[in-house]
This record gives sequence, C-alpha cells and structure tokens, in this order.
Amino acid sequence: MSLKSRLVGTAKRQVKETLRPVLQRAMAPSRTSIPASHWGLEHRPGQGLCLEGVPLKELTARWGSPLHVVHLDALKRNVQRFLAVPPGRAGGAEVYYSYKTNPVPGVLSFMHGLGVGAEVISAYELWLALKLGVAPERIVYNGPAKSEDSVREAISRGIQLLAANHAEELAVFSRIAAEVGRRPRVAVRVSTDSGWSAQFGTPIAGGAALRAFQQARASGHLDVVGLHAHRGATLRTEGELTGFVESVLAFTDTLHQELGQDLEVLDLGGSLCTPTTEHIAERDWRLNLTFFRDVPAPDPAASLSIDRYLALVVEMVESHYARRGRKRPRIFLEPGRAMTGDTQLLLARVHALKQGEDRTWAVLDAGVNHAECVRNEYHQLFHVERPDAEASRVYTLVGPICTPGDTLYHAKRLPELSVGDTLAIMDAGAYFVPFATSFSFPQPAIIALDGGKERLLRRAETFDDLVTFDAPPAEPARLSG
Amino acid sequence: MSLKSRLVGTAKRQVKETLRPVLQRAMAPSRTSIPASHWGLEHRPGQGLCLEGVPLKELTARWGSPLHVVHLDALKRNVQRFLAVPPGRAGGAEVYYSYKTNPVPGVLSFMHGLGVGAEVISAYELWLALKLGVAPERIVYNGPAKSEDSVREAISRGIQLLAANHAEELAVFSRIAAEVGRRPRVAVRVSTDSGWSAQFGTPIAGGAALRAFQQARASGHLDVVGLHAHRGATLRTEGELTGFVESVLAFTDTLHQELGQDLEVLDLGGSLCTPTTEHIAERDWRLNLTFFRDVPAPDPAASLSIDRYLALVVEMVESHYARRGRKRPRIFLEPGRAMTGDTQLLLARVHALKQGEDRTWAVLDAGVNHAECVRNEYHQLFHVERPDAEASRVYTLVGPICTPGDTLYHAKRLPELSVGDTLAIMDAGAYFVPFATSFSFPQPAIIALDGGKERLLRRAETFDDLVTFDAPPAEPARLSG
Repeated sequence: MSLKSRLVGTAKRQVKETLRPVLQRAMAPSRTSIPASHWGLEHRPGQGLCLEGVPLKELTARWGSPLHVVHLDALKRNVQRFLAVPPGRAGGAEVYYSYKTNPVPGVLSFMHGLGVGAEVISAYELWLALKLGVAPERIVYNGPAKSEDSVREAISRGIQLLAANHAEELAVFSRIAAEVGRRPRVAVRVSTDSGWSAQFGTPIAGGAALRAFQQARASGHLDVVGLHAHRGATLRTEGELTGFVESVLAFTDTLHQELGQDLEVLDLGGSLCTPTTEHIAERDWRLNLTFFRDVPAPDPAASLSIDRYLALVVEMVESHYARRGRKRPRIFLEPGRAMTGDTQLLLARVHALKQGEDRTWAVLDAGVNHAECVRNEYHQLFHVERPDAEASRVYTLVGPICTPGDTLYHAKRLPELSVGDTLAIMDAGAYFVPFATSFSFPQPAIIALDGGKERLLRRAETFDDLVTFDAPPAEPARLSG
Repeated sequence: MSLKSRLVGTAKRQVKETLRPVLQRAMAPSRTSIPASHWGLEHRPGQGLCLEGVPLKELTARWGSPLHVVHLDALKRNVQRFLAVPPGRAGGAEVYYSYKTNPVPGVLSFMHGLGVGAEVISAYELWLALKLGVAPERIVYNGPAKSEDSVREAISRGIQLLAANHAEELAVFSRIAAEVGRRPRVAVRVSTDSGWSAQFGTPIAGGAALRAFQQARASGHLDVVGLHAHRGATLRTEGELTGFVESVLAFTDTLHQELGQDLEVLDLGGSLCTPTTEHIAERDWRLNLTFFRDVPAPDPAASLSIDRYLALVVEMVESHYARRGRKRPRIFLEPGRAMTGDTQLLLARVHALKQGEDRTWAVLDAGVNHAECVRNEYHQLFHVERPDAEASRVYTLVGPICTPGDTLYHAKRLPELSVGDTLAIMDAGAYFVPFATSFSFPQPAIIALDGGKERLLRRAETFDDLVTFDAPPAEPARLSG
C-alpha cells in the first residue's frame, strides 16, 4: 500500500471517528431498544433474565450453546388471537400455519393441538403434516414447486385446498386428478398490484387471473372452490392490509360477474409482521456501519396486531359480502412470522473478544449460520446475565464462521462483555431454523419452555451427524507426513 | 392501487420494454458465456452434454435431481498444479485445503490421498480431518472460534500449526499448552492493509501485529514458528497478489529486525479465484434485472492461474530471502475455491414454467437453498440436452422455495425450455455445499465421476432425515377436522 493511500485511509478514519459522537447524538433514533418485559422476560437479581422463572443462563448450562428456546405460552397466546372471533362478528378465520417459517415438529404439533392447520409448500412439508397427524382437511398446499407425486398424494387424501401457483399448474392438477379419479378442491393463486408477483400467482391486472379461473372451471376434474392471494411483502400498517384486501375483494366481484364464480374459500395468505422485528432500512444500516449510530427499533405498539389484523380482515370480507347480499366465504389465513416469530429466542455465548482500534469485536458461537435474518432485520438483543447494566461500549458482534459476511450486529452498544457471557437474540421463531446451515459448526438444539418446565424438541447436531450420509472413502487417505 | 399509480407503473414498464433491445445491443458485454469445453464437457449428438463420456442427463435419471457431480480428474489436475515445483525453483509450497469451502469427506479424502493437508477452522473440522486419517502434522487450525476442547486436542496431537486469530487467543493457547504439557507450533495471524481485517488477524499497521508476536514469544508455552496471513478478498490479478505478498514479506523483515524472529513457516492463506466465477458488479446486476442485459462472463485466460500464482509466490519469497541471505521459510497455502470451485457442477431440473408478460419464469428444483452463491456470482449455465440450441428466449430462473429471494438468474437467455429439461450450474465446488439449507426441500446427493465411473459420495437427504433429531410430540396432535 502506498504512502498516499495510507494517508488517505488514516484521514478517512479520523473523520469518521470525529464525526461519530456528534452524529450519534444529532441523529439518534427515538427508539433503540424494546423492553424485555415485552416478551415476558423478567430480570431477577443474581439470576439475570428469566423466562417463566427459569434463568436463561441456566438453559445453556444445561442444554448447551447456542440454544433455541421456544416459549409455548407466548405461542399459545398468538394462536388464540388468530383463532378468536373478533368482537361483533359471527365467525373468524381458519388458520393454517406456514410450515416453512419454522418447520420444527414440536412447534407444529403444539399449534395443531390448539386447532391450527398446516400450510405446506413442498412434498416434504406435505409429508410432514401427514406424519404429524394433521387431518387432510386441515392442509392447504401452495407453492411453485409441487412434485407430481405430492400432488397425487394430496388429491388422493382429499386435502382441504390445493392452490395452483400459476395457471400452467392447472393442467397438471387436471391430469393427476383424472388419473386418481377424485376431484380436488382447488384454489387459483392471484397476484395483486401491491404484493409479490414474479413466480407467484397469476396477475389480476390485465385479466390473466380471470382467464386462469376460466381455465380451472373448464376442467371437469377440478372443484374450483377458492381464491388464494398472499401479499408477500410484510403487512405492518392498516393501510397496507386494507389496500391488499380491497384488491382481492374487487376481484371476487369480477369473478362473480364474469364467471358466476362464487367462492367457498377466500385464502388471504400470510405476511403479517412480527411487531418487534423490522427490515433495517439501507440508510440506517449504513449509518450504523459507518458512524455506529444505533439501529432504530420498531415500535411494537405502532404495528398491526394480530387482533386488529383479524378484526379488519373479517370486517372487510363480511361487509363486502353483506352489501352484495352474497354468502361470505370461509376466510383462510396462513400466518408465519406473526404466529411464531416472537415466541422463540436464540441464546448465544461470547466466545472471544478482540480489541480493535475503534470498537471491540465479539465472536459469538452463533452467527449467520444459525441467525441469517439478523443481517438485515432488527432483532432485539439482551445481555442475559446483566440486562440492566449500562450499554457503555460499542461491539461488532460476529459469528464463528470464517468470513466477514458473518456479522450479526455491526455496531451495537452493550454492557461490557466478558468471554462466556450469554446473549439472547429475540424473535428467532421465523426463518432462523429453515435458513440454518451446518457451515463448519453443527446446528443447535431447540428446547421448549412450557410452564417453567424444559422439554427437548430437537437435539443439537453432533459431529457424526454431519457426515452420516457420506460413503466411506473409496480408499484410505494416504498422506506423506 | 390508484389509477394514477397504475398508469405510472404501465408507463415505466413500457419504457423498460422499449429500451431493453436497444440497451442489450448498445451495452452488450464482450463475453457472455464460457465454452463447455473449458470444463471438459463435450456435446455428443443425441446425448447432450457429456463428461468423461457420460451423458449428464443420465446422471439425474440414475441418481435423482438436483445432483452434485464432482469431477475427480479435474480436481486431481488442480491438486497437481498446487503441489508442483515451479520451473527453476528448488521447492514449492505445502498445501492445506480449506475444509469449509467444500466439506465433503469423499472430496477431502481424494485430495488427502494426493498429498494435500487440511486447513480447519472449527472443532468439527478438526474432528473431521482426524477422522479422515489426516496426520496431525498435516493439519493447520485457524479461525476466530476455536473451542477450548479442540485447542486441547490440537495441542495434544501435535498438529502442524495452530494459528492465533487474534492476540487475545495467545493467552488461551498458553494456558491450555501449560495444562497439556506440550508446546504447540504456533502462528500469529496478521492482517494487511489490502485484505480482510475485522475479526480476523492482528493489523500490521500501527504495530499491533509486532506486539502480538512479542506476546507469543514471551509465553514459555508456545513454539512460535509461523506467520499467518489470509487476504480474504479474492485474488484475480498479479497486482493483487504481489501487493499482498509484499506487505507480508516487509513485515517478516520487521519481525527479524525488531525481535530476531525468523519464521519456519510463512502461511499465505488462500483467496485465489476460480477463473470462471466472478462476483457480479452492482451495475451489471442492475442492468440485468432491469434491462435483461446479459451478465458479463469473466475471461478465464485473464485470471491468475494456479500455476502462475504458485510461481509468483515462490519466486517472491525465495528472492526476498535470497537477497537477505536468510533461509527461506516453508510456504503454506490454503486454497479453497481455486482448488475445488471448478471441479463440481450442480444439475437441476426445470420443474415448471410460468409465462409472464415480458419473460418466462422457470422454476427449478434447486434454488438458493442449494446454490446460494449464484445470487451474486457469475456461474456458467448450460442446457444439458440442447447445449448448442440458440439462446433465443429470456428466462428468470427461480428455485423451489416460496420467496422472491429464491432467484438464481434474473434474466438469462437460454434455448427454449421444457418442463423436465436439465440445466448444469457450473463451479459448484466452492460454498454451495456449506451454505446449503434444508429449507422445505431435502439436500441433494453428491456423486463423483471418476474415469467415467460413478460413485456416490453423499446420499440425498430423505424426508425422515429432516426430523430425525426431533423428539416425538409430547402429545398427539388433536385436530378438529
């Protein structure tokens, strides 16, 4: 490196370091943390953060670190909110949990026991739902990549709803239905202007969705009962929700008028937010990276709650159909992150500390290998042993795998850390487990906390597990020493 | 959606569609493809693409799809290049393969059999190397997250080199070495101005690396034999390589002058590129996304080859030490992507086609779940059955998982696709396997092609495998039907 570029580098660093404290104050976000009580966590002197009376630090001592902890009581509350009948309404919605969001049998079975069905998007997930004892009439099958075998299984079993992701899939359904000799209950997935389109759904705009319904109805092998619409982009405000539902409802009128198609099932998909988690805006991310400005925390009270979401959906659908004097369809919802996101946390251990020039690097035993979402979402972080200690120092929290991409928090103000400290990464119940890899480190165990009792849902991977599908080498390794 | 925003949307789309053909011609990259022969693939009429005489399409018929195919002959050639003594030199380098890059026992054992050692970065990888029969003196242990148990194991076994990722790790090494009663061969990892720093290595600039060496030497328990430097950022040009090596060599002089430290081992890490793979520049990515402009293909001939890389490294080190009249240290290299990247391919099947307004969506049975790197790296794609057919249509190639993020190629000109067609994604031998997830779909099998014979290295995951670590539910799911 030349003297010139070294001088420029030094100058840049000095400017950053001078500006940091100024900008931190001048541009400090109004909210940088969410209180632990929001998740039912309690700080007990000498015990640190506790959940249902159990000190979290004891959990890693007993079960190992890192560790996923599912809070069943919180999950039960979310389930009950989704299954409630909103005040003043005759009925609510039927709820199918999005398996892909957190495909842990112990979590899924718990929800099924409370009356939640299964929304599956692959042959594996369909197999899993059936294995867990979910009745076929409690299964909705979506997704762009259904294998033909799994479509055959779904039709043979008579599942509740088989949704055609794209119009081309209707021909596959028809052919298999004819082979099986059974008429599946089919929905056509549509896409609205405001949500995902791409590989998902047939666009309402331009008439493609209407033509797909025509095509579906023309097949003698399909029982066209439903419409499926999934926004995709997270729903956080009433405006986002009502805009989406209005587009869908307007299309149900088109179906009625143009095709005489009345729907038995209106499947409005998922996409409701976890109130305590939010995508980090590009600007906030850069300010954090460069000037150590805190990442703004979302305001949970400002987010659409499950109660409000459900009330709005049911009200909009009911009044739409009441005004038209038509029978209100059954409403299906497919929550993922809103159901399980905030009911699970990931405990990680501070493995090592490396003192840098302008901050300290803390190497955790969990990184993007187990918590990929933390790269670009706000996730509340707690110091388990000293949750109330002053957050006096700036840390960059990295994971154990050997790449600078394994960074969970670029600049995070925390109480002074020591090797061995435990951190709790909140809202680990959506997309942490399915996006997990076994990159150089086995995957952690998952336990449930159930009325103060601990129960193992999934054991941690062992070293042997990571090579259990490998054939023995063709010949022994010969190595010159 | 309001009429206004719909009109704006339509206008934008029309501008894009009008500009696309113009921009595609005006700004067409000079190279958009790399010939199949580069990888030893051969097009045989009626058989499609063949490797070692085996039609690739038959492999998925026999072994399932998706499928990883390791080309052992290509891997052998890369190993031999790395282990060669460059022309005119007395010796070459010692080579330790970066386990994390492609941790497949069948691949690792094959390299070990040819004389390659193991570079490991976690307790698991150390365990795996020992399990595969690698002699301790052929193991280098790096990384920021070594468990204490694994450091104890490494010291007890007397591995070749234990590298302190950060200065703080030296105290851990010393303590454990004292407990074990054995002096480990230690290297201190340093960071140069041009490479990764962050959580990795102690910076040469400012004197921190020198102080770390002082600290290491002051411990009576460590045998300080080496310096470890890993650039991290990919090495593609001679200038990048020589700049990096010069910084390291200059620091070896400092060590000699200030501490009288001469090195037995100079570990220059990895980072050499795969010539046929390259990070997609932000601008190219956006032009592809918006205007369907082809992503430029790297020019393999313009990339630093293994031969040239090795020749330059050895020459620089030799002449540096010769000029100073000091003994040349042993040179350690830790290649990852340059060794295995271009020796493996991933076969995927076109599962479904969805006709869109301006392109066709092709849903593959492999997406970011098995080929994460394709999101931001150029990876050559071949149509296996019709490699020479005119690439007449634009496809967006997506994977099977239910998110728009599961997009491998945003706009790719290909021969007209049919459901069931096979595609070959090249250069799958670096970071495909370790970054793989079991997101809604089991992970694929890995086979080796060895002189025209097929051998299973790792079987595909089954549905049962995905829940084999889960406890049975506490109580059977009770579901109202």
